[in-house]
Amino acid sequence: MLKSLEYTTETKVMVPPLNFAMVAPGVYRSGHPNRQNYPFLIKLGLKSIIYLSSDDFHEELEQFVNEQKIQVFHYRIDGNKEPFVEIEQKEISSALVKVLDVRNHPVLIHCNKGKHRIGCLIGCLRKLQKWSMTSIFDEYRRFAGSKLADQEFIEIFSEHVPYDPEYKPDWL
Amino acid sequence: MLKSLEYTTETKVMVPPLNFAMVAPGVYRSGHPNRQNYPFLIKLGLKSIIYLSSDDFHEELEQFVNEQKIQVFHYRIDGNKEPFVEIEQKEISSALVKVLDVRNHPVLIHCNKGKHRIGCLIGCLRKLQKWSMTSIFDEYRRFAGSKLADQEFIEIFSEHVPYDPEYKPDWL
Repeated sequence: MLKSLEYTTETKVMVPPLNFAMVAPGVYRSGHPNRQNYPFLIKLGLKSIIYLSSDDFHEELEQFVNEQKIQVFHYRIDGNKEPFVEIEQKEISSALVKVLDVRNHPVLIHCNKGKHRIGCLIGCLRKLQKWSMTSIFDEYRRFAGSKLADQEFIEIFSEHVPYDPEYKPDWL
Repeated sequence: MLKSLEYTTETKVMVPPLNFAMVAPGVYRSGHPNRQNYPFLIKLGLKSIIYLSSDDFHEELEQFVNEQKIQVFHYRIDGNKEPFVEIEQKEISSALVKVLDVRNHPVLIHCNKGKHRIGCLIGCLRKLQKWSMTSIFDEYRRFAGSKLADQEFIEIFSEHVPYDPEYKPDWL
């Protein structure tokens, strides 16, 4: 049992999680948050977190999300690894259904470093927004540098994303 | 006189302006938009544009903002240039007052490339949000690479920003 966490938004310095950025209204991305990011996360007023990782959800963060009443959606996804490990399109599709439901907003999507797995998911989201591939790859590389396996995954992604039109964000 | 512009959000591919990204709820950043970005900009539903450049406002964009009833705030700012050209802190402060007024949201802030001048302004905004210098510089470099004159400008920035508390965004 961890000792009770103390955090306040009155902290002098706010520390966003690694590679934190805003994706679209109601949607944030980052690497794995830790204790020093809690005041920052509280300020975001998150309703849910989408976690992409084959690791278990971290015990300390578990306590934080319970206290803050943040719902967690955990997808056990490993990153693309040439030549034979590839993210399942179905998993990304399921995660996107959660992202595209305003009842989950504001939502933070994170993996470990906030680069590759998140980059793949955001790339697929941009395809649904009909962004040009040039701008999708540019955004991907801004966080992750060049990784052909991921860019290929994004380009090829064609899985149906059965989001609920009634609750889709107005920016889609 | 330019011929009437035709643009529709039904376009197959959406092209965001160079270095486009979301900064915070209601605030976007980018390089200079051009004609092929109009459908994308329309989708954002912008209420205002903040333009940082010593150049005149571009004729074609002028027509677009008039048609879309987008208000433009133009600050004639040149980028930092070592050793003796430095952005006026007062100018950045005035622009920040506009950014921190929800009556202007959604707002797009742009310069030419969406890197240095915008990077300075966003860096100063992050200081008001109390972000750590590490995360401010990390965000700056994600778009602009390393430029010490700009990072120094951000670090030293201490001008008062007299925004109206009644209309400040709730994320500040």
